[in-house]
Amino acid sequence: MTRVDLAAVACSIARTVDVLGDAWSWLIVRDLTIGLGRFEDLRKDLGISKQILTDRLANLQQHGIIERTEYQSRPPRHEYSLTDRGRALMPILVSLTQWGDTWMSPDGPPMIFTHHACGRPGLALACFGCGEPVTAGDIDLHPGPGGRTGPGTALIAQAFGGNGPAPGG
Amino acid sequence: MTRVDLAAVACSIARTVDVLGDAWSWLIVRDLTIGLGRFEDLRKDLGISKQILTDRLANLQQHGIIERTEYQSRPPRHEYSLTDRGRALMPILVSLTQWGDTWMSPDGPPMIFTHHACGRPGLALACFGCGEPVTAGDIDLHPGPGGRTGPGTALIAQAFGGNGPAPGG
Repeated sequence: MTRVDLAAVACSIARTVDVLGDAWSWLIVRDLTIGLGRFEDLRKDLGISKQILTDRLANLQQHGIIERTEYQSRPPRHEYSLTDRGRALMPILVSLTQWGDTWMSPDGPPMIFTHHACGRPGLALACFGCGEPVTAGDIDLHPGPGGRTGPGTALIAQAFGGNGPAPGG
Repeated sequence: MTRVDLAAVACSIARTVDVLGDAWSWLIVRDLTIGLGRFEDLRKDLGISKQILTDRLANLQQHGIIERTEYQSRPPRHEYSLTDRGRALMPILVSLTQWGDTWMSPDGPPMIFTHHACGRPGLALACFGCGEPVTAGDIDLHPGPGGRTGPGTALIAQAFGGNGPAPGG
């Protein structure tokens, strides 16, 4: 794979997928969300090698997304859980799931999200300003204060030229 | 990378990241959303090789996420645009962006999403049933009708045992 340094790209999408760019990482986060946190359970659930799982867990821990605790000392056994930073990935899990449900799940959704308070399914993006549900065509994109021109965003400022207000800062 | 066949895992997250598991694919979708669609513009913006870009575009086209049109015939030049299936990725772009904005953007958000109708920023997950905003802790997960036990979901049914109603079908 090429390495333009994704972490150095002034783009929150690039920074996020740099940390969570691997399919197994997403499935580990899914399993921790559901409550599968022991190393051996994760390995069995995902069907991957110890080495792959160890690598992905180390990367997630290094980025502050999960934390490890020992639940048995002889022999030592560990389990993993999401940090606040990790739990905050939930809206991404929901949106990844919804796209897969809509476009790639002929047998119906494998997993369903419901709102704890009212018990109903059907989470969707809404505008926090006016409360209305929002779909792709309702969203405008604008440059923000953290934007910079560089590898990964070399032409974006130019593309934004006709598509919104000037950068915020 | 190991290959448990992600496309065969009964999980909408696995199916989605199998198609869009690569960082460059997400940045290509981002650029097409902003309006950068010409091959040469994508290459310049992302700073990647023609080969990498060609591979990722072919994969996205094969999965029905983008379509290609010739905008000049001599010499032939192509531009790419999102299909309906591709435009439906927007909520994922928004959620990837928001996590990166919150946890990895010390200079502020590089890009801002606003609601076209009211002009305000601040898109968030809400419950379609009751209209209330929803955060990670407000969401319950349940098995759905498309769930199956297999590689990638070997223990999930068991983990769901104490965490919701029986599968829907």
